[in-house]
Amino acid sequence: MQISIVMGSDSDMPIVDKITSILDEFSVSYEKRILSAHRTPAQLHDYISIAQEKGIQVFIGVAGKAAHLPGVMASLTTLPVIGVPIKTDMMGGMDSLLSIVQMPKGIPVATVGVNAGENAGLLAISILSVADKDMEKKLVEYRKKMSKDVLQKDAKL
Amino acid sequence: MQISIVMGSDSDMPIVDKITSILDEFSVSYEKRILSAHRTPAQLHDYISIAQEKGIQVFIGVAGKAAHLPGVMASLTTLPVIGVPIKTDMMGGMDSLLSIVQMPKGIPVATVGVNAGENAGLLAISILSVADKDMEKKLVEYRKKMSKDVLQKDAKL
Amino acid sequence: MQISIVMGSDSDMPIVDKITSILDEFSVSYEKRILSAHRTPAQLHDYISIAQEKGIQVFIGVAGKAAHLPGVMASLTTLPVIGVPIKTDMMGGMDSLLSIVQMPKGIPVATVGVNAGENAGLLAISILSVADKDMEKKLVEYRKKMSKDVLQKDAKL
Amino acid sequence: MQISIVMGSDSDMPIVDKITSILDEFSVSYEKRILSAHRTPAQLHDYISIAQEKGIQVFIGVAGKAAHLPGVMASLTTLPVIGVPIKTDMMGGMDSLLSIVQMPKGIPVATVGVNAGENAGLLAISILSVADKDMEKKLVEYRKKMSKDVLQKDAKL
Amino acid sequence: MQISIVMGSDSDMPIVDKITSILDEFSVSYEKRILSAHRTPAQLHDYISIAQEKGIQVFIGVAGKAAHLPGVMASLTTLPVIGVPIKTDMMGGMDSLLSIVQMPKGIPVATVGVNAGENAGLLAISILSVADKDMEKKLVEYRKKMSKDVLQKDAKL
Amino acid sequence: MQISIVMGSDSDMPIVDKITSILDEFSVSYEKRILSAHRTPAQLHDYISIAQEKGIQVFIGVAGKAAHLPGVMASLTTLPVIGVPIKTDMMGGMDSLLSIVQMPKGIPVATVGVNAGENAGLLAISILSVADKDMEKKLVEYRKKMSKDVLQKDAKL
Amino acid sequence: MQISIVMGSDSDMPIVDKITSILDEFSVSYEKRILSAHRTPAQLHDYISIAQEKGIQVFIGVAGKAAHLPGVMASLTTLPVIGVPIKTDMMGGMDSLLSIVQMPKGIPVATVGVNAGENAGLLAISILSVADKDMEKKLVEYRKKMSKDVLQKDAKL
Amino acid sequence: MQISIVMGSDSDMPIVDKITSILDEFSVSYEKRILSAHRTPAQLHDYISIAQEKGIQVFIGVAGKAAHLPGVMASLTTLPVIGVPIKTDMMGGMDSLLSIVQMPKGIPVATVGVNAGENAGLLAISILSVADKDMEKKLVEYRKKMSKDVLQKDAKL
Repeated sequence: MQISIVMGSDSDMPIVDKITSILDEFSVSYEKRILSAHRTPAQLHDYISIAQEKGIQVFIGVAGKAAHLPGVMASLTTLPVIGVPIKTDMMGGMDSLLSIVQMPKGIPVATVGVNAGENAGLLAISILSVADKDMEKKLVEYRKKMSKDVLQKDAKL
Repeated sequence: MQISIVMGSDSDMPIVDKITSILDEFSVSYEKRILSAHRTPAQLHDYISIAQEKGIQVFIGVAGKAAHLPGVMASLTTLPVIGVPIKTDMMGGMDSLLSIVQMPKGIPVATVGVNAGENAGLLAISILSVADKDMEKKLVEYRKKMSKDVLQKDAKL
Repeated sequence: MQISIVMGSDSDMPIVDKITSILDEFSVSYEKRILSAHRTPAQLHDYISIAQEKGIQVFIGVAGKAAHLPGVMASLTTLPVIGVPIKTDMMGGMDSLLSIVQMPKGIPVATVGVNAGENAGLLAISILSVADKDMEKKLVEYRKKMSKDVLQKDAKL
Repeated sequence: MQISIVMGSDSDMPIVDKITSILDEFSVSYEKRILSAHRTPAQLHDYISIAQEKGIQVFIGVAGKAAHLPGVMASLTTLPVIGVPIKTDMMGGMDSLLSIVQMPKGIPVATVGVNAGENAGLLAISILSVADKDMEKKLVEYRKKMSKDVLQKDAKL
Repeated sequence: MQISIVMGSDSDMPIVDKITSILDEFSVSYEKRILSAHRTPAQLHDYISIAQEKGIQVFIGVAGKAAHLPGVMASLTTLPVIGVPIKTDMMGGMDSLLSIVQMPKGIPVATVGVNAGENAGLLAISILSVADKDMEKKLVEYRKKMSKDVLQKDAKL
Repeated sequence: MQISIVMGSDSDMPIVDKITSILDEFSVSYEKRILSAHRTPAQLHDYISIAQEKGIQVFIGVAGKAAHLPGVMASLTTLPVIGVPIKTDMMGGMDSLLSIVQMPKGIPVATVGVNAGENAGLLAISILSVADKDMEKKLVEYRKKMSKDVLQKDAKL
Repeated sequence: MQISIVMGSDSDMPIVDKITSILDEFSVSYEKRILSAHRTPAQLHDYISIAQEKGIQVFIGVAGKAAHLPGVMASLTTLPVIGVPIKTDMMGGMDSLLSIVQMPKGIPVATVGVNAGENAGLLAISILSVADKDMEKKLVEYRKKMSKDVLQKDAKL
Repeated sequence: MQISIVMGSDSDMPIVDKITSILDEFSVSYEKRILSAHRTPAQLHDYISIAQEKGIQVFIGVAGKAAHLPGVMASLTTLPVIGVPIKTDMMGGMDSLLSIVQMPKGIPVATVGVNAGENAGLLAISILSVADKDMEKKLVEYRKKMSKDVLQKDAKL
C-alpha cells in the first residue's frame, strides 16, 4: 500500500474519486478511509501510525470548511501530507484553503487547489517518482499524452 | 480552577494577557498553557482530559493562521470551547477566523472577534454566570461600569 | 424554558429548524421568536428582559447581511448569546459573519459558522452542561454516536 | 441644531473631526455624542427621540468592526441616517463597511466610504440643500472651489 | 417630479422595479431613465442638469461591476445621489459596492446594500421627509406596518 | 505628444513618476495632467478631445478607491486607455482594481497591477510599437537588459 | 492575420467566441489556438515567435484559475498582450484576475474584466486603431451605435 | 545536489534564507538561483532540464504577486515542485497564493503558506525522507525537539 487517502466526510467522495482515478491509471496502490479530525480524533491518531507501519509513503487529506484534517495528519507523521481543500459557499472554498495551507512553522501540508483531486493524485505520484524511475517514466508519458490531447484539440479548431 | 486558556505559541501571549486581565478582574481562577495542536498533539490530548478532571468549566483556545487549536480542543471535550483568532497578514486574520469559526457539524467552537481577548474572557464569565448568580451580578456591575465610562466620555465632549 | 431562539426574519426558519432538531434530540426546552433588531427594536428589548425572568439560560440569535440581532441581544443581557450568521450572496455570508463576530470590546457574541444551526444548538447544550451533569452525559453519548456513524461509513468503504 | 453625530467610541474622534470641519465650513449647527449601540443601548434610544424633538434633521453614525450603531440609529428614527465605517485591520474596514451598508429591507443607512468623514458631512449638507436653496448655493460654491484647487495643481505641473 | 432613477443598463430593471414599487406606495413621483456613464456620457450630463431644472430632489443611480454611474451623477449635481450596487459574480457584488461607496473626498454617494432597491426608495423618501412632514408621517406609518408584519409572523409561531 | 497621463489627485504623483521614468528612458513624449472624473468632469471632457487632436496615441489614467478616472476617459475616446489602480487600505487596493478592470461591455480599460506605474509605461510603449519598428527594437533591447540584470544577480549568488 | 487569440483550454471557447464575434464585426483577421502554458510550454513558445513573423499585431490570452497563459505569452513577445480572466468558483474569478493583472515589473498584461471577451476584442481593435484611421472610424461608429442602442431602450421606457 | 531553490527576484532572498537554514540544519545539499519566469524564460527552461540531470530531487519556487514561477517550473519537470507565495500588499499575499495553488488539472504545485520558507524546506525534506530512512529519523528528531521547545516554554509559564 503506497498512498493513504483520508477524507473528513463521505460527502467528499467525488473529490476522492478524482484522486483514485489518477492512482488507478498509474497502478499505484492505495487505501481510502473516512476519519474525522474532530469526530474520530482517537481513531485518526491510531490509523496514522498503523498506516505508516503498513508502508504508506504519502498521505492525502481531503476536507472542507475549517479543514483541519490534513494539518492534524501532518502533525502525526513525518511523511509528506497532501491537502485538498473542498469547495464551500464561503468565497468558493477560501475557508478550506486557508485552513489547510496556512499551517504554522514546523508542520507543512503540501496544498493543491480547491477540489483539485487529480492534482493531489499526480503530486503523490510525483513524490513517489523521486525514488522510482519507472514512476517517473510513467509521469513523463502522462505529460506527453496530456500535451498531445491539447494539441489535438488545437488542431481541430 | 475554572478556566483553561491554551495558546498555540508564546507569541500569542499579549492576547492571552487581555483574557487574564478580565478573569482577574472577576476573580475567576484559571490556568494558562502553551500547547500546540500540531507540535505537541499528544500532550494536548493528555492535558484536555486532565484539565476536565481538575474541574475546568470552560476552555479558551488562542491561535493564528491555520488555527486548528480551538477546534482540536473542542474535539477532545464536551465542555464549551471559546476560540480567539489571532490577527495575521492574510486579510487581517481572515485565515485564523475561518479556521476557527467554520467548524464542521457536531463540534462547535464559540468564536469571538480577531484578537478579542477581553471578549473571550467575558464570554467565559457569561457561561459561568448561567449557574452562578454571583458571577451574573458581577457581570451586571461590569456592564454598568462600562456604560458609565462611555457616558462620562460623552459628558466631557 | 432553557433556550431562547430569536430569528430576524421568517426566511431564517430552515436554519432555526436545524437548531431545534438538536434541542429536541437532547430534550432541551426552548422557545423561538421572530423579532428584528431594526424593525421591532422595542419589542426585542422587552422580550429579552421577560425571557430572562422566565429562566432562559442561553440565547441564540439568527440573522443575515448586516446581522445586528445577536449583538443587540447581547447588549441587553449578560447571559451567553450565540450568533448564527446566515449565508448571503456577499462572499457566501461574509457580511453576516463579520457583523456578528467582530463585536466591540465588552459585549461578546459566541459565533458559530455560517448556517451552522446544529452547532449553535450543540454549543447551547454544551453551555448548559457546565452545571448539568446529565446534559454532559448526553453530549458524551452524542459524540460517541457521531463517532460511530463516521466509523460505520468508513467500515463500508 | 441641524445635524447629530454619534460615535460608538471616543477613538473615532479623528473621523468625527473630519465631519465637523466640513459642517463648520458650511456654518451648519451640530452636536456630537459618544453613545454605543451595545454599551449604552438605553441612552442611545432615549437620545434619538430627544434629538428629533430638538429639530435634528440628519443623523450621522460613526462606528467600526461589527458596526451596528448607524443601523440601530436608523431603526429608531425615520430621518436620514448616514453611516461612516471606520477602518479596521480586517481587510481594511470590510467588517465595518458590510455591517453598515448591508442593512435589511426596510431600514436603510446612507453609507459613505471607509473613514470618509468629509463625505459624510457633505452628504448631510446635500440632504439639507434639498429644501434649503442657500445651502445648495454654498455647495455649488464648494464644488467650484474644489474644482479650482484641482485645476491650480494641474496648472503648476 | 421628485425622484430621478437612472440605471446603467436595462438588465438592472428588476432592481429599479423594487425602487418604484416603494415610491408608488408613498405616492412619490419619479421618472426612470436608462443612461450609461460610459456609453452615453454626453446624454447623461445633459439629463442631470435638465432633471434638476424639472425639480428633481433626489437622484438614484443603479449600476453593477465597475459601477461608475452613481459617482458620475454625483459629480454633476449637488443634490443627494443614492447608489444601488448590483449583484455580480465577483464576490457577490463586491466590485459594484466598492466602485460606488469608496468615492473620493468631496463627492459622496449615499450607498445602500447590494440589490437593495427597496432601501434606496425608502432612503429617498426619508430625505424628502426632512422638509415634508406628511412624508415623515407616511414613513412612520410604514415602519409601524413593517413592525406589525414581523409581530404577526412571530405570533403565528 | 504621444502619451497623455491623467491622475485623479496630486497624491498619485509617485506612481506617475514611475510611468514617466519609463517613458523618458524610451524617449517617448508625454504630458501629465491632474484632472478628476468627479471634481473637474467638464475639464476632463474638454481635455480628452483636445488631447486627441494634439496627436495623443495612448492615454493612461491613474486613480484610487472608487477609481472612475480611467473608465470615464475610456468613455470619451476610442484610443487605448491604460488604467493604473492605486493601493488603498481596502484590501490593498482591491477597490481601485475592481473599479477599473470590471468595466461594462463596450468600453474596455487596459488594466495593469496595483501601483504598477512601470508596467503602465511599458504597455503604452508596447502599443506604440505595433506600428513603430524602432520602438519595438528598443523594447527588445529593454527586455534583454532586464534579463541580463536578473542573470547578473543570479551569477553573484 | 492581425490578432492571435490563445486559450488555455477548450472550455474557454464561449469567452473566445465573444472575442471573435467582435473581431468579425470589425472585419479584423485573427487566428485562435488552444495552447497551455503548463501542458504545452514548448509549443506555446514556438507558436509565439511564429505568430510574430506572420504579422500578428496583438495577442489575447484567455485563461482561468492560476491563469499564467497571458503572462507567459507576454514574456515571449514585446507586442501587446491582452489578458482575459475566466470566471471560477474562487470568489468569482479572483484567482484568474489576480494571476493575470498582478504581473511583475517589466512584463505588463493589459487586463480586462472577468469573462469580458467583448472588451478584449474591442481593446485589441483600439490598439490597432492607433495606427489605422479606418479602424478608428469603425470604432467611433460602433460607439455611436452602442450609444443609440442605450437611447432607444431609454426612449421605450 | 538534492534541492533546487529558484526565486523570481533577489528581493525574495529573506524567504529563501528561511528555506536554506532548514536545509543546512538537515545537511541537505542545495543550490539557489535567481531566474524569472517572465524576464528570463529561456534560461529558466534550460536550467530546469540541467538541474534534473545534476540529480536534483525536489524543486522549490519562491515568487510573489502574479507568481507564475513555481507553476512554470512544474510544467518543465515531473519532479515535485514546492511553491512559496510571497506576502504582498494585495490582501496579504492572496495574489501570490492563488497564482500558485490554483494550478490547472495535470500540473500540481505543492503549495505552502505565505512566506512559509521553513515549511517549504521541511516539506522538501519530508519528500526526500520517503526513500531515505536517515532523513526520516532526522525529521522525527526535529519534531521531538520542536515539541520539547513548546513544552519548555509551557513549563516556564
